[in-house]
Amino acid sequence: MPQTPEQLRQAVELYLDELPLHAALGTLAEPVRYALGGKRVRPVLCLAAAEAAGGELARVMPAAAAVELVHSFSLVHDDLPALDDDALRRGLPSVWAAYGEASAILAGDALLAEALRLALRCGGEVAAELLEATLEMIGGQQQDLEGGHDLAELHRHKTGALFCASVMCGLKAAGLAPELQPPWRAFAAELGLLFQVVDDILDGDGFVAEVGETQARQLAEEAAARASARLDEFDADTSVLAEIVAALAARTS
Amino acid sequence: MPQTPEQLRQAVELYLDELPLHAALGTLAEPVRYALGGKRVRPVLCLAAAEAAGGELARVMPAAAAVELVHSFSLVHDDLPALDDDALRRGLPSVWAAYGEASAILAGDALLAEALRLALRCGGEVAAELLEATLEMIGGQQQDLEGGHDLAELHRHKTGALFCASVMCGLKAAGLAPELQPPWRAFAAELGLLFQVVDDILDGDGFVAEVGETQARQLAEEAAARASARLDEFDADTSVLAEIVAALAARTS
Repeated sequence: MPQTPEQLRQAVELYLDELPLHAALGTLAEPVRYALGGKRVRPVLCLAAAEAAGGELARVMPAAAAVELVHSFSLVHDDLPALDDDALRRGLPSVWAAYGEASAILAGDALLAEALRLALRCGGEVAAELLEATLEMIGGQQQDLEGGHDLAELHRHKTGALFCASVMCGLKAAGLAPELQPPWRAFAAELGLLFQVVDDILDGDGFVAEVGETQARQLAEEAAARASARLDEFDADTSVLAEIVAALAARTS
Repeated sequence: MPQTPEQLRQAVELYLDELPLHAALGTLAEPVRYALGGKRVRPVLCLAAAEAAGGELARVMPAAAAVELVHSFSLVHDDLPALDDDALRRGLPSVWAAYGEASAILAGDALLAEALRLALRCGGEVAAELLEATLEMIGGQQQDLEGGHDLAELHRHKTGALFCASVMCGLKAAGLAPELQPPWRAFAAELGLLFQVVDDILDGDGFVAEVGETQARQLAEEAAARASARLDEFDADTSVLAEIVAALAARTS
């Protein structure tokens, strides 16, 4: 019997709470841990995908945590005054507002390096997958700074890439054969799109600003339907993933 | 016949010139490439160590480039206004002064991610070695911000760690057996100390400010002598490494 998303979330929370950081980070450990708040959407997705592929949770957990650390790294740097200049994150002071810009820059760097150390524990393939997504996110943020880029492409880089990597890192950590991976990647891409469109509906920006809320809702529903259809095709127990798709489509925060 | 340090440097230069960056980086490729100036001390050391251990240069080159990219990453972020606030680097505008703070933060992030992608091509062991050094450097920079830390420890983190990793990444990429690695690591640590003390002598700060120039020169000579003594003990052609030790001890810029 696979674990529910909530059980997976609790397992991630515990793992992150007890995650040992590199001793050399010293006082930087505090902003690094502070940055690790969040809903754990990506690591739960990573674990659920791994479990569907027959992976053992304990072995996949470092990959799930790695995905979350990369997500946190990107938020810490994107919030900086020179970038999005966000003093608040999840209703609390962002890392730079709480610890200063210098420590926020270094804490972001440390999160990325720690993420890759974790990913490596699940093998070079997992680390390579995560690096691909990281570079896409960084490029997406640069596009965002420049302005004038296609919104769908921007979102694919800034959000879709790490969503896709969450699924793929879980599958790779679980040892899914390479020839079985492409349809999973297509599923993951739909999920990334779904997440971003719903984000925009909740924030009233992005896709909503471009095509209006009705059209955006339709985009989200279509992405959710395509993701669900993909799931039905896999020769695996994808019930937990189906639950995650439904939750992502229906979320209100 | 092993290649001379100058031949190795030229090979690194060519490799970096032609290094393909991730397509998603887009316009960020420009500040990333701009950041890659430098004397190539670390990659040459990496290649020379690999060659002494019987490694094939073409196979080790990604590891050598990875070390240089991590070095560049650290400089780009350390130069930022929130950290060391250096508008000049090697006589030219630093990356943030040339491209703005936002792009400098993202370019540093991209350099780190690209470095790890390169390191992974030489295997997970090489990537893990590089990540250890990266985390030590980040922690060292945090200690520097705080002030009040032991200078030798600070230098070991900020400079020694990546010097050590340069040698160890080369050896690991060359496939040196784990049981043969510890004395090489001791050699690499001496080299890191030597490099930093000479740096301080040339800049008139750090060790020089703490113990005076005469004492600092003696420290450097002792480190060079210990490094050379280590080299004599290896069952390998270490002539190029001996040349590098002598050049590091005698350098005037």
